[in-house]
Amino acid sequence: MFKLIQTEGRARRGEFTCAHGTVQTPVFMNVGTQGAIKGALSAHDLREIGCQVELSNTYHLHLRPGDDVVRALGGLHRFMDWDGPILTDSGGFQVFSLAGLRKIREEGVTFASHIDGRRIFMGPEESMRIQSNLGSDIAMAFDECVENPATYEYAKASCERTLRWLERCKAEHDRLNALPETVNPGQMLFGINQGATFPDLRIWHMQQTAKIDCEGYAIGGLAVGEPAQVMYDIIDVIEPYMPVDKPRYLMGVGTPSNIIEGVARGVDFFDCVMPARNARHAKLFTWSGAMNIKNEKYKLDERPIDPDCACPVCRSFSRAYLRHLFAAGEMLAMRLAVLHNLYFYNALAGRIRQALDEGCFADFRAEYSPKLAGRL
Amino acid sequence: MFKLIQTEGRARRGEFTCAHGTVQTPVFMNVGTQGAIKGALSAHDLREIGCQVELSNTYHLHLRPGDDVVRALGGLHRFMDWDGPILTDSGGFQVFSLAGLRKIREEGVTFASHIDGRRIFMGPEESMRIQSNLGSDIAMAFDECVENPATYEYAKASCERTLRWLERCKAEHDRLNALPETVNPGQMLFGINQGATFPDLRIWHMQQTAKIDCEGYAIGGLAVGEPAQVMYDIIDVIEPYMPVDKPRYLMGVGTPSNIIEGVARGVDFFDCVMPARNARHAKLFTWSGAMNIKNEKYKLDERPIDPDCACPVCRSFSRAYLRHLFAAGEMLAMRLAVLHNLYFYNALAGRIRQALDEGCFADFRAEYSPKLAGRL
Repeated sequence: MFKLIQTEGRARRGEFTCAHGTVQTPVFMNVGTQGAIKGALSAHDLREIGCQVELSNTYHLHLRPGDDVVRALGGLHRFMDWDGPILTDSGGFQVFSLAGLRKIREEGVTFASHIDGRRIFMGPEESMRIQSNLGSDIAMAFDECVENPATYEYAKASCERTLRWLERCKAEHDRLNALPETVNPGQMLFGINQGATFPDLRIWHMQQTAKIDCEGYAIGGLAVGEPAQVMYDIIDVIEPYMPVDKPRYLMGVGTPSNIIEGVARGVDFFDCVMPARNARHAKLFTWSGAMNIKNEKYKLDERPIDPDCACPVCRSFSRAYLRHLFAAGEMLAMRLAVLHNLYFYNALAGRIRQALDEGCFADFRAEYSPKLAGRL
Repeated sequence: MFKLIQTEGRARRGEFTCAHGTVQTPVFMNVGTQGAIKGALSAHDLREIGCQVELSNTYHLHLRPGDDVVRALGGLHRFMDWDGPILTDSGGFQVFSLAGLRKIREEGVTFASHIDGRRIFMGPEESMRIQSNLGSDIAMAFDECVENPATYEYAKASCERTLRWLERCKAEHDRLNALPETVNPGQMLFGINQGATFPDLRIWHMQQTAKIDCEGYAIGGLAVGEPAQVMYDIIDVIEPYMPVDKPRYLMGVGTPSNIIEGVARGVDFFDCVMPARNARHAKLFTWSGAMNIKNEKYKLDERPIDPDCACPVCRSFSRAYLRHLFAAGEMLAMRLAVLHNLYFYNALAGRIRQALDEGCFADFRAEYSPKLAGRL
């Protein structure tokens, strides 16, 4: 259930209630691919750094340990000891980006596991069954994520099929939720808009997708090769066709600046592996831009990573200590860097919400969107 | 300052007070070689798992980031944000086990750094200066740790030199502690007994070492290749010559059973990398013996690692989850395994103390020394 609290331009401040709690939006979801967060973080650590929604990957958990195993152990919440909201992706993105030897047909996709090469079939029904076994709060529809640039013909055929797949997802999802032995009977379904970078396809697909009753709608197939401005333009094109009373989720995006720009265009949910991936490469986010903590100049620097950050790392450790941990190859380096970067992303969403609450999001955007745009 | 509270046979229950607090003994010290604990644990995590004393390595910190850097940043306590007692080893053990191209002379040892091969000289004075810069609570004397088996002639010459080195350590340590700019003016010095597996050398060396006033005495050069029974016999031989009013530290030992047997022979301090190293190989300690959590039989096992354990891991996660994390190659596997194993060792020391307090250590030893003897 989505409640719109406040708007400023197209930016939205809302509340989304699902089986495991209420989420304040805009929200950044923290990625725990295999039921654990990169950098040796557990679900308990997520609590400490302000995470509201944990995101796990259907493809990975289906392969290992197996969604049947997770189900037998009481579902993903119990498995990883996280009692807050969980969103699972559909598996589609990994099938199309990670697995090998893909063959797409109307029924679904046959592919080779990236772990052991074994042939696996996944279609809309399989994806729904896996996500039902995991017991997430939000299941994502099984779609095809087309890489940019794509041809018009391919993108058109693909998003037509994704629409047919959504209808099958919806039917199977409703059936599974009604089963007496279902792990999370309150599981919701989000549909996904596709159409590559073609405005007319995007609009047509969004219009059709919105006709299928879902608890939220996502924008997929962006941040997959196209420039940021193209992504912004596509969001601008789709947004007027997205239901106002349902949350909007921009999948896999992005830099802090991308998130601010997404919010400005009416997006409510975000997720990205960037904070964890950058952390592993010693690239840390701060309110005045990004830094590489391995730099020699931090050798004797007693200051925290970011003096304006209240994360568990900045409260206790110096840049010099972090730099030493990276230089010494200590696993703790990864953990502290990921803790800081994820905290930063969660705090960013928090400051966006505060700005919206106070009616000063435009000022916030004008100050921080350029400042946080730099990549390392 | 050491206070003997209770004895049972030769086993001792005591309290040791140093600059950063009072340590209940017998105690197991937790190893943080480079100012961080293996498995992505920080000093904060040590607090959570009952650690009383953190142990860091002089050799490693001298090489990286440099003890001058640590000193400039306020010492090791501030660097790693640990306000409890810290013991630093002398660097000797690593010089003799890890570094290359060693040349031992009366003045000290020239060796090649294992990181970049650069030639470094370390003698008693250098070791004291490095440990003074680190600002640990307990500095260890610079000694030669001879591998077993050793020839009598070599062991004799070596422990005579280690004795002369102790005199130089003591003089330099006193001088450094008295300097106005010293990091930790309350730093203590422990002497180290050597003599390989030769009872007469061990006794002679202990008698001479005890004449030099130190705040504690360690038994070095054991658990370096000899069978456990030989180690126990050597402790039996030395113990009567160790000052009763000073703590005794059995360096680098050992299995849970080794620790119980060490306590039974009058030892107060222990340290070992085994809990962390075993954890990284999925080998976990429990009160009913060791287990390999990767085993297929734990795939659907909902129980904690050890139902009798109150560690943060056993309170929240199942064997099945741990097994999955190892199978999936998640860094979190290491962290949770190390947290559990270190907690187990700290709890073991706690239960030993409790048994001594209650006068039932003999029973405890009879039950747990055999049960916890198995290696994986």
